[in-house]
Amino acid sequence: MNKSRLEAFSDGVIAVIITIMVLELKAPHGDGTAALVPLVPVFLSYVLSFVYVGIYWNNHHHMLHVTAKVTGGVLWANLHLLFWLSLFPFTTAWMSENHFASAPSAIYGFVLLMAAIAYVLLQQRIIAAQGSDSLLHRAIGSDWKGKVSPVLYLAAIPLAFVSLIWLVPDRRIERAITEGGELRKRSV
Amino acid sequence: MNKSRLEAFSDGVIAVIITIMVLELKAPHGDGTAALVPLVPVFLSYVLSFVYVGIYWNNHHHMLHVTAKVTGGVLWANLHLLFWLSLFPFTTAWMSENHFASAPSAIYGFVLLMAAIAYVLLQQRIIAAQGSDSLLHRAIGSDWKGKVSPVLYLAAIPLAFVSLIWLVPDRRIERAITEGGELRKRSV
Amino acid sequence: MNKSRLEAFSDGVIAVIITIMVLELKAPHGDGTAALVPLVPVFLSYVLSFVYVGIYWNNHHHMLHVTAKVTGGVLWANLHLLFWLSLFPFTTAWMSENHFASAPSAIYGFVLLMAAIAYVLLQQRIIAAQGSDSLLHRAIGSDWKGKVSPVLYLAAIPLAFVSLIWLVPDRRIERAITEGGELRKRSV
Amino acid sequence: MNKSRLEAFSDGVIAVIITIMVLELKAPHGDGTAALVPLVPVFLSYVLSFVYVGIYWNNHHHMLHVTAKVTGGVLWANLHLLFWLSLFPFTTAWMSENHFASAPSAIYGFVLLMAAIAYVLLQQRIIAAQGSDSLLHRAIGSDWKGKVSPVLYLAAIPLAFVSLIWLVPDRRIERAITEGGELRKRSV
Repeated sequence: MNKSRLEAFSDGVIAVIITIMVLELKAPHGDGTAALVPLVPVFLSYVLSFVYVGIYWNNHHHMLHVTAKVTGGVLWANLHLLFWLSLFPFTTAWMSENHFASAPSAIYGFVLLMAAIAYVLLQQRIIAAQGSDSLLHRAIGSDWKGKVSPVLYLAAIPLAFVSLIWLVPDRRIERAITEGGELRKRSV
Repeated sequence: MNKSRLEAFSDGVIAVIITIMVLELKAPHGDGTAALVPLVPVFLSYVLSFVYVGIYWNNHHHMLHVTAKVTGGVLWANLHLLFWLSLFPFTTAWMSENHFASAPSAIYGFVLLMAAIAYVLLQQRIIAAQGSDSLLHRAIGSDWKGKVSPVLYLAAIPLAFVSLIWLVPDRRIERAITEGGELRKRSV
Repeated sequence: MNKSRLEAFSDGVIAVIITIMVLELKAPHGDGTAALVPLVPVFLSYVLSFVYVGIYWNNHHHMLHVTAKVTGGVLWANLHLLFWLSLFPFTTAWMSENHFASAPSAIYGFVLLMAAIAYVLLQQRIIAAQGSDSLLHRAIGSDWKGKVSPVLYLAAIPLAFVSLIWLVPDRRIERAITEGGELRKRSV
Repeated sequence: MNKSRLEAFSDGVIAVIITIMVLELKAPHGDGTAALVPLVPVFLSYVLSFVYVGIYWNNHHHMLHVTAKVTGGVLWANLHLLFWLSLFPFTTAWMSENHFASAPSAIYGFVLLMAAIAYVLLQQRIIAAQGSDSLLHRAIGSDWKGKVSPVLYLAAIPLAFVSLIWLVPDRRIERAITEGGELRKRSV
């Protein structure tokens, strides 16, 4: 079985995911720059998710570059990863529309975590398919640390993001954004 | 004629199909986890259709892997399969918005069946194009059973799904979901 | 310059075009099969446009299969064809929402015609890039008839379609469909 | 690392961007050609953005054709370019809905400029990855002029466009379009 079609299909799905997220950035009704203010959290969420999907695409690219053999199990593990990535537009939209409220942010983080787990599962499947003396196996290592590190790495980013949202900016900025949104809703 | 472009085009169409189905998962208006309850049937339908499209992509991948020659008839049989797959987002949306009511579920099953038939027709076209001593021909067999088994196999899944929906969960769960939706509509 | 990327990009654009047309098939509000009646013209238009885009993809596939050299002019002629194809979702939606009224049907036909002309221009560009003793040049011929026949061929289909819509079915069917739509609007 | 997947992913993202922009061309409610009048600015903006994305795809195609080596930095510089291109549907929609008002047009121009800068950064990354005696390096040149010219070239187009919009057509045309839009809003 050849890997080129697995790559092409993954590229297609990730390309659509990354692009339909931008549909959430709806053109505002006013024609002044003030009309863009309520879009700030939507834009920030889009940037975050874009970077995230970009990291996955880059990692996927590197991992499959050193993959020689693809099995049925790899195909399904890959679809499993694409499933969690495909939920990014939904969780991004929900989080941004609610100005990073706790429940939507938690669900956003949960989907990020599931994608990280799915990535590790895919990595395991690929290593198993290549055999124990494969390039990928040696690159990643067979120890506990090597297996879990991508999860930790990928989980660190949403934690950093949440810290950024909840600690660094004082409430005044957030309030200004929320009020911008409220005013806009009232004026409609 | 080479098969790589047939694969690339099919990958593109299937990638878009699998991804636009997630657009049906619209961000709810509330910011609590309770706001997600009315989305449960939509999410379940999305998972089901995702798995289904995934099965088709996997099977398509395997079948074309052992295909050497592509004819004009194969191109059209492939487009015919893609046509029925392209109706999945519509039937999935209608079924999930009506909490698996009988008519939308029947239409969903009908499109699944047509996709299964289209897959078998594509398989026939490909076998005919390869010649009688081809790898695919020997792999599938020329008997009645070999030809019909994919239909039976693919039709078994929606049947299992319908059983799951109508038999296993008692009505209380379904009612809770429906009421969640009603409450949400009223509160809007 | 290699043609594989031209093919891949065209496949991507055509795959998205063919799939977003199905977004026009919006899930109806009722859960009975009667709710599907107002969707009949939308579905028929989708089938027509799907077949049309399929014809273009097939022809494009064949033409590029015998193409050896790609120039900058070919890239732009290809983008020009994709531009007119990209208007199909719009013209299909407008025509189907107005039950094949004359103005939307004329615009639909106009875009079909422009796509046919763009296809012939692309063909000319490709032949010019290959040189006069190329395979494609000999396959198509340099005479007036060979150049114009794709336009005639492609223009014949919408004419046949219009005849089908306006001549074959008597008014009673159309009225039933329209009334189905009216009833649905009133019940909303 | 091979460049084919970078090309495939970029093709996928650009194909989706170019196609979802057409979703802004929503089917009007009336069935006469007069119903198309308010769509004129939307259509013009679509043509402009289509041409723009087409220019980027063509340039990207040429640049990667002479690229031999791809590094991690090139992958990220490419994602950065795709990010700014992905904002085209939003800025196009906002500009066209406000009939080329100054703020939306400025934001549209700003995103064009950022895309031009991202393109130059990608070019720098690619040249750095190839080494100083590479084909691309010699083709573009190492001087200040060679580096900045794409920005100037790409920035010249929106300037020309703005001139076209604000200088050439007298106000009567614009007023007619705006009034067409007003009338349509009132009749809804």
